[in-house]
Amino acid sequence: MTYPTLPDDLVIPGDGRIVLVVLDGLGGLPHPDQGKTELEVARTPVLDALAARSSLGRLTPVVPGVTPGSGPAHLSLFGYDPVRNVVGRGALSALGVGFGLEPGDLAVRLNLATLNREGEVVDRRAGRPSDAVGQEAVARLQDGLDGFELQGAPVDVFVRHEKEHRAVLVLRAPGLDEGLQDTDPQETGVPPRRPAPLVPSAEPTAQLLERILSQARELLKDQTPINGILARGYAVHRGFPSMEDRFGLRGVAVAQYPMYRGVSRLVGMEAAPVPGSDEEAVAVLEEVFGDFDFHFLHFKSPDARGEDGDFQAKVEALESLDGLLDRVVALNPEVLAITGDHSTPAAMAVHSWHPVPLLIQSRWVRPSAAEFGESTCRTGELGQIESRHLMSLCLAHAGRLRKFGA
Amino acid sequence: MTYPTLPDDLVIPGDGRIVLVVLDGLGGLPHPDQGKTELEVARTPVLDALAARSSLGRLTPVVPGVTPGSGPAHLSLFGYDPVRNVVGRGALSALGVGFGLEPGDLAVRLNLATLNREGEVVDRRAGRPSDAVGQEAVARLQDGLDGFELQGAPVDVFVRHEKEHRAVLVLRAPGLDEGLQDTDPQETGVPPRRPAPLVPSAEPTAQLLERILSQARELLKDQTPINGILARGYAVHRGFPSMEDRFGLRGVAVAQYPMYRGVSRLVGMEAAPVPGSDEEAVAVLEEVFGDFDFHFLHFKSPDARGEDGDFQAKVEALESLDGLLDRVVALNPEVLAITGDHSTPAAMAVHSWHPVPLLIQSRWVRPSAAEFGESTCRTGELGQIESRHLMSLCLAHAGRLRKFGA
Repeated sequence: MTYPTLPDDLVIPGDGRIVLVVLDGLGGLPHPDQGKTELEVARTPVLDALAARSSLGRLTPVVPGVTPGSGPAHLSLFGYDPVRNVVGRGALSALGVGFGLEPGDLAVRLNLATLNREGEVVDRRAGRPSDAVGQEAVARLQDGLDGFELQGAPVDVFVRHEKEHRAVLVLRAPGLDEGLQDTDPQETGVPPRRPAPLVPSAEPTAQLLERILSQARELLKDQTPINGILARGYAVHRGFPSMEDRFGLRGVAVAQYPMYRGVSRLVGMEAAPVPGSDEEAVAVLEEVFGDFDFHFLHFKSPDARGEDGDFQAKVEALESLDGLLDRVVALNPEVLAITGDHSTPAAMAVHSWHPVPLLIQSRWVRPSAAEFGESTCRTGELGQIESRHLMSLCLAHAGRLRKFGA
Repeated sequence: MTYPTLPDDLVIPGDGRIVLVVLDGLGGLPHPDQGKTELEVARTPVLDALAARSSLGRLTPVVPGVTPGSGPAHLSLFGYDPVRNVVGRGALSALGVGFGLEPGDLAVRLNLATLNREGEVVDRRAGRPSDAVGQEAVARLQDGLDGFELQGAPVDVFVRHEKEHRAVLVLRAPGLDEGLQDTDPQETGVPPRRPAPLVPSAEPTAQLLERILSQARELLKDQTPINGILARGYAVHRGFPSMEDRFGLRGVAVAQYPMYRGVSRLVGMEAAPVPGSDEEAVAVLEEVFGDFDFHFLHFKSPDARGEDGDFQAKVEALESLDGLLDRVVALNPEVLAITGDHSTPAAMAVHSWHPVPLLIQSRWVRPSAAEFGESTCRTGELGQIESRHLMSLCLAHAGRLRKFGA
């Protein structure tokens, strides 16, 4: 499991504290007029001063050309090979709403949908209902779905609303299997499909899900616009070896958004109190700093403004975060790493595969430039490495790795 | 076995001769006053002139963040994935004293120890005896240990002194197994443990070792301070596919220190006559050059001065070696590669994980700078690659690799 991110048995106990700041969607592309990226245009005196006493480099989130979602991108930053440690879509949805998934849980993505009297799908998204309407339907399901068994054992059923027509169903019982057909037909004018088993071992789970979906239809039948649900993205959560087991690190996550706390929880990090703003996030880090070995601080705004396709807004988001980072620097951790989980160039308005700027500050660095940007990072000491190797570098810089072989 | 260093069946016969010069511990960190590394501060006119007509780059010894010992670091330079080709501690000890390990040999690290009359360990290191005292005990064991059999076959027993209280035991017979408990209890006031088998297949080896340790105790019982031995680090030597089999290269090692000749022998290189100085090493290379395809020339001093934590002494060691390298250049091999096995920054006074400067001189290069240093190598033609890929590059530059696929 550990190699190819790190050969076995190299981790040693240590006191060196690590802070990883993720500026979500940090990497960008040059503005056609200026020829500089969002990060290069932004006035970031704190990051630039830090760069001058750091090693610079670039992270390839997965492998060249592959654009990651937030789940694999963060797993990679945490030292888990994202290709060998796949988190199913259902599980990501559950994590995304802050649900405490346990190993063996079956997570399922739900569409809240509109059916006609014949039971055919009229609108797979129920007209994109408001969150309030979506939440009402989910509450009805959560209250009503009850009394299920799988091979004689009681089944816990959890339904959580995500956003608009999206929700997630989590089943908890021994022996659940994810080898099921989607019930979402991906078209209208036909009824939902059956959750047929794709493998013989999934037969009992298929029967269970059929009973649940049937009861759900009863619970919603007189409602409007949401009177049906469509299921897909089945994922049995397998659990991950924890960051503490693998790296000897007690970790804490400081993140406003549930998705990032969820991925952190996957690898055994504790969730700090939820901050209500970027500034509060820094205050929470200041609060918990020192009680943990590894501190993950997540900022969402560069990705959000990048996805808006708004170059200038992303510039301003980075400038605003730069103004907070001096307080992180002032904590003086043994290792301070600042990077992104992936690029989100405003020019593309989506996640991209482009390498992401990285800096590592510690006692053992080779500085090469007094600016933090795509260009300076391209020729930095750390070179261009896959994100899954960042954790080994942080451990090394923190004095937490022994020599490999004699 | 071959890939991930090189796809199979690409090696073709050729005449191109390769010289690999390893400046042990070459890579460094900037001096706080000058902002330059040891290599960058050193006046190295030969290396700089060579850089101007070479491709530059950097080697990551294992994976990012991982600091290698000399064994895996050199295996990697020789084209062997160091994580998949682990050399056990006992085998490294045997190699370290120049012992000619053969496949199937069981190598065991020994501590020369002091026991009390009750047979309890009083000092696991026998008061760190002088080498002379250690050698005397080893000679007594080597002379006395005799007459052992394993499943009816005679067992050859070799004992070699390393340094102070450290020695190595090598057993040679068919069917040896390394799955044994350490007899070193790692504490005092208790007797040595039994070499109990950890797996059923190790039972005969366990009984053999018990008889050997018992006879050893008899041989040492009236001695002082060394009257016992403690065993650990069992390693059955599995042998490696040779450099000749894998790469079509007949290799020779020119190295003052037994460790480096030992690792070379592991992959089938011949050991040239042992030089007594750096200058003699160059003379030995001049002597053997042309009788082999691959010539490995090892210089220890940059690592030694780096481990001393003496920046200026490491600078001077590099300057002194630079003065010898013009004679290596004058041999005009088709490929001359100069690098280190790992970094040993004086600032850290130990091996480190930092990438190591590399130059390759041949007819097929893209020069980029007229100075050989960490900064120029960072932006060089060869990029940043894992050491295990160096051999493929040398073969390519020597015209010894065919096209992969049509």
